[in-house]
Amino acid sequence: MTSARAAQPRHFREVPRWDREADVVVVGLGAAGACAAIEAARAGASTLALERGWRGGGTSAESTGQIYLGGGTPLQKACGFEDDPEEMAKYLVASCGPGADEEKIRRFSEGSVEHYHWLGALGIAFEVGFVPYEESTMPRPGKGLTYTGSERAHPFREIARPAPRGHNVTRNGVASGELLMQHLLVGAAAAGAAVQTDARCETLVVGDDGRVAGVVARVAGGEQCVRARRGVVLASGGFVNDPEMLRRYAPDLLQTGRVIAAEGGDDGSGIRMGVGAGGAAVRMGAACIVLSFAYGNRDHIRGVLVNAQGQRYVNEDVYQSLHGEIALRRQGGQVWLVVDDSIYRPPEQDAYAYLGLRVAAVAETPEELGRELGLPEGSLGHTLAVYNAHAARGEDPLFHKERCWLRPLARPPYAAIDLRVGHGPYPVFTLGGLWTLPTGEVRDVDGEVVSGLFAAGRTASGIPAQGYNSGLSLADATWSGRLAGRTAAATG
Amino acid sequence: MTSARAAQPRHFREVPRWDREADVVVVGLGAAGACAAIEAARAGASTLALERGWRGGGTSAESTGQIYLGGGTPLQKACGFEDDPEEMAKYLVASCGPGADEEKIRRFSEGSVEHYHWLGALGIAFEVGFVPYEESTMPRPGKGLTYTGSERAHPFREIARPAPRGHNVTRNGVASGELLMQHLLVGAAAAGAAVQTDARCETLVVGDDGRVAGVVARVAGGEQCVRARRGVVLASGGFVNDPEMLRRYAPDLLQTGRVIAAEGGDDGSGIRMGVGAGGAAVRMGAACIVLSFAYGNRDHIRGVLVNAQGQRYVNEDVYQSLHGEIALRRQGGQVWLVVDDSIYRPPEQDAYAYLGLRVAAVAETPEELGRELGLPEGSLGHTLAVYNAHAARGEDPLFHKERCWLRPLARPPYAAIDLRVGHGPYPVFTLGGLWTLPTGEVRDVDGEVVSGLFAAGRTASGIPAQGYNSGLSLADATWSGRLAGRTAAATG
Repeated sequence: MTSARAAQPRHFREVPRWDREADVVVVGLGAAGACAAIEAARAGASTLALERGWRGGGTSAESTGQIYLGGGTPLQKACGFEDDPEEMAKYLVASCGPGADEEKIRRFSEGSVEHYHWLGALGIAFEVGFVPYEESTMPRPGKGLTYTGSERAHPFREIARPAPRGHNVTRNGVASGELLMQHLLVGAAAAGAAVQTDARCETLVVGDDGRVAGVVARVAGGEQCVRARRGVVLASGGFVNDPEMLRRYAPDLLQTGRVIAAEGGDDGSGIRMGVGAGGAAVRMGAACIVLSFAYGNRDHIRGVLVNAQGQRYVNEDVYQSLHGEIALRRQGGQVWLVVDDSIYRPPEQDAYAYLGLRVAAVAETPEELGRELGLPEGSLGHTLAVYNAHAARGEDPLFHKERCWLRPLARPPYAAIDLRVGHGPYPVFTLGGLWTLPTGEVRDVDGEVVSGLFAAGRTASGIPAQGYNSGLSLADATWSGRLAGRTAAATG
Repeated sequence: MTSARAAQPRHFREVPRWDREADVVVVGLGAAGACAAIEAARAGASTLALERGWRGGGTSAESTGQIYLGGGTPLQKACGFEDDPEEMAKYLVASCGPGADEEKIRRFSEGSVEHYHWLGALGIAFEVGFVPYEESTMPRPGKGLTYTGSERAHPFREIARPAPRGHNVTRNGVASGELLMQHLLVGAAAAGAAVQTDARCETLVVGDDGRVAGVVARVAGGEQCVRARRGVVLASGGFVNDPEMLRRYAPDLLQTGRVIAAEGGDDGSGIRMGVGAGGAAVRMGAACIVLSFAYGNRDHIRGVLVNAQGQRYVNEDVYQSLHGEIALRRQGGQVWLVVDDSIYRPPEQDAYAYLGLRVAAVAETPEELGRELGLPEGSLGHTLAVYNAHAARGEDPLFHKERCWLRPLARPPYAAIDLRVGHGPYPVFTLGGLWTLPTGEVRDVDGEVVSGLFAAGRTASGIPAQGYNSGLSLADATWSGRLAGRTAAATG
């Protein structure tokens, strides 16, 4: 899976000939690259997208097709939800930090409705209906709007007025990143962007003045030098598929064992090329770490998460990506979900198989369950007694789980679902990447722009700078791709 | 405090003339720079050190002069402690991770006794005596050996055989980084290294081949171009004094408010220059975050640390830098130390003033104390009841605090010492920096060496990659400085 190491740029003078030329060259044809290509081509720039796969799509095509949009989109309004850019921005700053890029968030929140219509004009539509928060974060037939974050959970609900912002691209009611990519790829072709598949890019071409002038691609076993008259947009994903980069930048992710990425994609080549050409890579330890214990059974949120001391450590209703971050990075990946018989349901085959949830222990009392898990004597019994006493009154003074999830766990037997890292499901992808302006221009370590170089999607550090909600990567990719494509096309 | 932004290297051809030349040019004259200069000069290279201050010393001179050494040093042996390189390496890998640089640790552990003698030959001696672990981690008159890490605390004591490794440079029994630096600076002069003070370096000079050929320094208001025939060693500290870099790479440190750094030093200029010349910066979020609640009163370790839920969250006997990491990054900086009247002592003026410890609340019972702190009703009472019941038996089944610290907290009144970030003391410095080989050669994003460029001390990511023990930064700086100086001198 480790890719070749050739990120140092080639000098303009060492290019024997230009095999191809375009105004804007886009590297990678996932959501970010496709949107960059569309906008660049529409702006009148001759545009060439280079894709390593045999077709475009990348990890975006393998995603669930959720796009985080808000600020009062037609879908939100049709489903009866109020939202505005300020509330959306407040939530994103709180959930994408510390150190969120507030300017990117502000622009995206203000532009979100326009972005909705832009996607719509490409044929990307959402079924008008809302899946109740208590039921699922995934779409259902006829229902394209879902909650995909911690908007309703403490402390976020006190920071910003909650609204569902998961806009789900569906095919026959099932979430489909593939359909999203189909629309975007058709859009890119319609806009006049050329596509070269089977083209692997690992080296940029840089002139005497430091300006990025093109890219070296390996196509069908041969080398092609592709000149970019106005700029190169790097949009080839993150680095979760590159163990060496993980070791260097985010070593704790190596424990998780499963990555969210297209096969062979997200190998860090875009980030490495950008750094080689002078770009700064920032927030490289940031990641989306998913701990998705409620995916197949939303009632699991009524359960109690405990750590190796048998203590609760979080309100169970925060979103799955925050759960992953907290469980792995604050609890050492040693956590279990405790449920009673009123919650436990025999696993739905597909959902549970997907997640790989396993029951670690079953017992008639919490004390006994704690003993089976090897927790300190008495701790789990006390944790549940305190939880139950408060839950009976609809309260959670420790972590403020929302009332709708509070109910004493009092019907034996009790079960503990194993969520320890290495035992439970921790799919991950990386959020760190090239430091960019909101325009998509890549910045060097001084904060100056690297001429001719742009980045979008997970190749850049974007809106989900240091925290994640589902749909944010596609939102960020499509939005930042558009901006990068436009800026590149307008570059003199 | 923000420094100028000029990290993009200047091209060799744009250098009007060389004002000065040397084989090896060292940027920064703290511990790392001084050791680099000594070794380079001793190896026969003409060596010039450029220091921004009016004299050398940097943050090293303002430190407590603790050096983490082990593997069976003469001081350890004289004090009756067994140690060997394997145990030392095992401890360092565990406490400097995840993602510790095992090769750097192995070499340092194996070379530690030799390094001890090397320092000794420069006049750096340690008083032969051991300060008992229960008493202090700082030296006393006649006693230069102390514990300066979590060696005796769970889980480390099960990973490696504990030994004290804090080798303290003292003057009149008081820890003194200034005395350490005096010896190192005299050593550099004796070795024949030239020093230019008041020389601020922010730009490297790079040739057509990418090789680092020198540095541009501002001396007395004018610009001097200094040629480095063999190499430049960047040793100008970390970036804790640069708020812009903190925002980009380690935003949570901005909450802590206090930095450990020489005034104007540790401004990230070395790291930025290195990145500008093609070096990769890694583990940039890593930091030493000190939460030093037991500095003035070691008995505080007998107290109980609680979080915003009134729960314990760590064994109180881990080292202060691990406490800071855990409190800030895993508990959101919302923690208190609870003590009873058998532990509490009126603050010793100097120690407490240094730390700024404040009492948040005093009460006759734990329940009442919890109420005053605004903790969930009943939680603190339960926490102390559980702690006391086990402590009476010399046990801590939740966190395994060592038996010597266990005693019920049963003598009212109870006090809570405020350790919340923004209220308690959280001095910090950064650990992230340039990616280097153990030889000190700087690596680019492909892992290839950047010709002519070396880094040492906090300008590099070194032995304390992702976790800290006191004395490790001086150990790493002196050791990595030596290696970088030697390698640079031997470069063709």
